Amino acid sequence: MKRTSDATRSRIFDAARAEFARFGIAGARVDRIAENAPANKARIYEYFGDKESLFALVLEVELERLGSAIPVPEDPRGIPNYVRAVFDYHAAHPDLVRLLYWEALHFSSQDAPREEERRTFYAQRAEYLAQAQADGVIPGSLDPRHLHFLMLGLTTSWFGLPQLARMHLDDDPGASQNLVAQREHVVWAVCRILGLEDPGGPDNADTQ
Amino acid sequence: MKRTSDATRSRIFDAARAEFARFGIAGARVDRIAENAPANKARIYEYFGDKESLFALVLEVELERLGSAIPVPEDPRGIPNYVRAVFDYHAAHPDLVRLLYWEALHFSSQDAPREEERRTFYAQRAEYLAQAQADGVIPGSLDPRHLHFLMLGLTTSWFGLPQLARMHLDDDPGASQNLVAQREHVVWAVCRILGLEDPGGPDNADTQ
Repeated sequence: MKRTSDATRSRIFDAARAEFARFGIAGARVDRIAENAPANKARIYEYFGDKESLFALVLEVELERLGSAIPVPEDPRGIPNYVRAVFDYHAAHPDLVRLLYWEALHFSSQDAPREEERRTFYAQRAEYLAQAQADGVIPGSLDPRHLHFLMLGLTTSWFGLPQLARMHLDDDPGASQNLVAQREHVVWAVCRILGLEDPGGPDNADTQ
Repeated sequence: MKRTSDATRSRIFDAARAEFARFGIAGARVDRIAENAPANKARIYEYFGDKESLFALVLEVELERLGSAIPVPEDPRGIPNYVRAVFDYHAAHPDLVRLLYWEALHFSSQDAPREEERRTFYAQRAEYLAQAQADGVIPGSLDPRHLHFLMLGLTTSWFGLPQLARMHLDDDPGASQNLVAQREHVVWAVCRILGLEDPGGPDNADTQ
């Protein structure tokens, strides 16, 4: 009984993620999630609450999955390969950036889901960079909060603005050679910004 | 008669821009545009065609306004102040980045409005950077199309992802001191990426 219930929840979750990634918060329809899961609509409300709560949960879980899959490196000199891994993660999980973009447009200047916990998360990331500054690994003259945001923008834009990426290349931005090329430019940019050497990733040679 | 008609078109255009920036393409309602203009709904279809055509026109005009307001500098060593000006333009005209984000989510891998003309525009920008590479002003080892896209991502993310910007600072990302701080970090990043000296803008001292 418990197992069946977990399976149902998991199916609802996957259908909800696909629905929100495609249609956004305002555009998502719980009817369609129920149909695609498939699951009973009443069961969805029972498990997850209203549509905004369901969106908040989906985003929370997806952000946690990214965080668990790709922890920041203990030694900040590993940041270039960390950035590589984050970029590859987004390429393999395109829903996450779309969810963040929908969130941005929907909430704008109003509180987004779980702002307090997420502020703490970003504060820890800034603290991580501040420590690297204190250790003399990256330049100390800049605000680590802004530095982290620059890295976030560089790592996500290709997936968030695929139409502009496509217009830049006159080609599919999701084609593997284009993904590798953009990723290596992003890694190069982050290395320049942070004054780090790139140890070189497994596919680094592809762009040479 | 002509004057009245132009005024009506202009009011419809402004109402449409506000509607699309707030609700996106799927979420926009021509009824609401008509109410806010104010204008007759039939007149809107007569002047502008369907909702997607109206969105395409709004985005086209807004992109042209940015391009006219802030041309690329004749000497690419002026890029740092060009980036400053583009960032300030987005801060003053927040609708444009939102329109691009809505467009990204709506069209995704399908053709967006006027792709061919916009490809030509970005090709010219890449050509501009390629010339700067040929002249030895910026490093020649990188793909100018990807370089331009990196600059675009850096310059727009603060406005496109305001909820993440707010979480990073635990403060209003649109507050003037926060805008200046992010702008100067973006300019610094672009200078590092392109290997350019920052001549320093009028407000540069604010972040020291």
